Amino acid sequence: MADAIDAQDGSFTVGIVGAGLIGVMLAAGLVRRGISVKVYEQARGFREIGAGMAFTATSVRCMELLDPAIVYALRSSGAVPISIGDHQGEARDYLRWVDGYNQVPGKDTTDERKLYEIDAGIRGFEGCRRDQFLETLVKVLPEGVIECQKRLQQVYEKELGDKITLEFADGVSVEVDCVIGTDGIRSRVRQHLFGKDSPHSFPHYSHKFAYRGLISMENAISALGESKAHTLNMHVGPNAHLIHYPVANQTMVNVAAFVSDPNDWTDSTSLVRPATRLDAMNDFANWNTCLRAVVGFLPEKIDRWAMFDTWDYPAPYFSRGKICLAGDAAHAAVPHHGAGACIGVEDALCLAILLGEVSVSMRGQSAMDYGRAVVAAFNTYDAVRRVRAQWFVDSSRRVCDLYQQPEWADPERWAKAETCFEEIKDRSHKIWHFDYNSMLQEAIEGYRQRMSE
Amino acid sequence: MADAIDAQDGSFTVGIVGAGLIGVMLAAGLVRRGISVKVYEQARGFREIGAGMAFTATSVRCMELLDPAIVYALRSSGAVPISIGDHQGEARDYLRWVDGYNQVPGKDTTDERKLYEIDAGIRGFEGCRRDQFLETLVKVLPEGVIECQKRLQQVYEKELGDKITLEFADGVSVEVDCVIGTDGIRSRVRQHLFGKDSPHSFPHYSHKFAYRGLISMENAISALGESKAHTLNMHVGPNAHLIHYPVANQTMVNVAAFVSDPNDWTDSTSLVRPATRLDAMNDFANWNTCLRAVVGFLPEKIDRWAMFDTWDYPAPYFSRGKICLAGDAAHAAVPHHGAGACIGVEDALCLAILLGEVSVSMRGQSAMDYGRAVVAAFNTYDAVRRVRAQWFVDSSRRVCDLYQQPEWADPERWAKAETCFEEIKDRSHKIWHFDYNSMLQEAIEGYRQRMSE
Repeated sequence: MADAIDAQDGSFTVGIVGAGLIGVMLAAGLVRRGISVKVYEQARGFREIGAGMAFTATSVRCMELLDPAIVYALRSSGAVPISIGDHQGEARDYLRWVDGYNQVPGKDTTDERKLYEIDAGIRGFEGCRRDQFLETLVKVLPEGVIECQKRLQQVYEKELGDKITLEFADGVSVEVDCVIGTDGIRSRVRQHLFGKDSPHSFPHYSHKFAYRGLISMENAISALGESKAHTLNMHVGPNAHLIHYPVANQTMVNVAAFVSDPNDWTDSTSLVRPATRLDAMNDFANWNTCLRAVVGFLPEKIDRWAMFDTWDYPAPYFSRGKICLAGDAAHAAVPHHGAGACIGVEDALCLAILLGEVSVSMRGQSAMDYGRAVVAAFNTYDAVRRVRAQWFVDSSRRVCDLYQQPEWADPERWAKAETCFEEIKDRSHKIWHFDYNSMLQEAIEGYRQRMSE
Repeated sequence: MADAIDAQDGSFTVGIVGAGLIGVMLAAGLVRRGISVKVYEQARGFREIGAGMAFTATSVRCMELLDPAIVYALRSSGAVPISIGDHQGEARDYLRWVDGYNQVPGKDTTDERKLYEIDAGIRGFEGCRRDQFLETLVKVLPEGVIECQKRLQQVYEKELGDKITLEFADGVSVEVDCVIGTDGIRSRVRQHLFGKDSPHSFPHYSHKFAYRGLISMENAISALGESKAHTLNMHVGPNAHLIHYPVANQTMVNVAAFVSDPNDWTDSTSLVRPATRLDAMNDFANWNTCLRAVVGFLPEKIDRWAMFDTWDYPAPYFSRGKICLAGDAAHAAVPHHGAGACIGVEDALCLAILLGEVSVSMRGQSAMDYGRAVVAAFNTYDAVRRVRAQWFVDSSRRVCDLYQQPEWADPERWAKAETCFEEIKDRSHKIWHFDYNSMLQEAIEGYRQRMSE
């Protein structure tokens, strides 16, 4: 028999599947709005891999609207501006592109042609380690909201006024009034919505993989020179590119080298494979001396990470009935805008505002009325969010194609290759300068419109 | 010996090469600012082919700033809103996309899945026939400004304070203080700037060709239904697309069908080749019945037009010394935004404002000082215009790729294909909502900055 979560005020209960960053932030936003919520996480705890990530200034303001405690958690977990400029004492962030392929003849080997720079503003990007942020973030939630070791097995939907049953691998079932899947790129909730035989249920290989590793600041300076070693730079070239930025209080430099791969990734259950520094050096053999030096400082044994996303088969809808998807579960992108989680934060804010509206407007109504309201809220969420989120998935592929234009290899075609930066700027601005207030207004109006029909 | 044009006020003279729309508009803008100008045209007169074209609302405002008489010429040559909506009596223009490939099962054959619509606003696009507009436009200029049958052969540049000599095919030479090439996609001035052996001097094949033709409104209605026949629609599908819009006071429908072509266009001196309706029917053989009916109504003998542009080898700069390029001579694009001439109008406005600034600020100075000022003006023009104009060339290719996504052929991939419209909307808005006031401010500030260095 299934345990039902009791809504504290007799209204409705939300079951979130997946306690990643987006699931936990969303739960915090719902708790703050007095909504009964439980988060079910398959893992035993929150020790994720220590990958670096960054949040745009806009997404930090979205966190604030979800719950100011989220921003406090971000900052207290050690977030710092990630791509700070070379001007002393300034907190502005810049994105910078340099020519990683062509040697400038007769120049210092650390010298590369500077191609473009975009000013992302004060605290434009705040970087942190995912594991550290998540560990601090879960403490924002009251005791007992998150339940670990709950691997979702099956979802049972009945009528509009009925509860939805979530069945977990440990045999336990729970009943909730609505379900939000924030269970990441390989979302189980997504598979429930589209079916196990549909390509829309699964991410696909983007035909790019990445080598990742840390190098010491000392080595970085010898390869890149002082200025580049201390800042974020993207080195572009034919069919590959490399990004690096300082971490650990400027004592180390994080390096990610992305390589085009015409082959299929045969085993999609394992997205990481062992590789060696030599593999990476072969992939960048024809690049400039400066770039080759960076790759040469990578550890001898490194991993090759497959980049999967939902570009090939995007979700035809983000919600059906009283079930919806958010974050990577709805739209997983390759990491080339450095802002995948930011789009998920926008999702979470939109859902929190909409469910807050349901909670306030439906108080005391029947389960059937609540059901109708949740469907209206989720359909509105789909209408408000899907276009932007799927644009972001496309755009993440597109900017990678621009960074990796074959034209970078041919000086006669540099003029063509360099025309890409206006588009890259436009795409970056669309992400950074997102008008979340308009989104929220559209969401509330859309919900009210649907409820009045 | 060369004829020198005498500047009426003893200041400086501008030689414009090419009396197409952009050259003539620019000349009008210069005349209005009291600047001595001559336009040299290789043709005998102004009877161009009767192709249709359209101007965005923004570009019409740029014309107004060049010279209000230009807008008067546009309207009196019969310009009408080109893509007007189906709401009676409304002058709003819309761009509309429908699924031209897939038959909707069990539906009326004139029914196609509507994919997207963008509202371009009141008089968003004003359409006219190029020949009619140009014929009216040249009358805006004083007698004698345009000289016909002047095919540019050679350009001779000397020192900064010296005149530039233009040598024509008829043996006549003239001397001018500066030169603007508005001589179109196969610009001779462009070849002078980059050299006859450089790929940057010539346009290249975009690997798309077009069938163009008119069909009667009666036939259009039988193929498309009343609503579509009377409005502008783009029918998208795998590796081809078709656009049509009503002309001649809604008695005819203009059709252009664009087809991907993996082959090279072997003879780049002849961009038009004869073809038949049967060729077009073969290229659209697998499309829906509605689309096939449209193609079936094309004339039996039609032309196949090669689409060339400057995408592969864009100009590394738009100006060098006292010579610059504007319009298609600087940046030729494939026609998929329907706004190529609009970008040229922006160029013309920018140049007119900058040369107006030269004229006002340099009065009474030496030829050397004027030379320095013209170089500053042209370098500023390059800095202000090149990024946008080359973005536009790229974008025109890109939207065609999106219209012709192979994914349209596979219903499982429709969700992916349809994510393109957010990008198409952004690109359209960037063209339509151009902030020409900021451009002019940037131009004037840039010029003054360069002059103060």
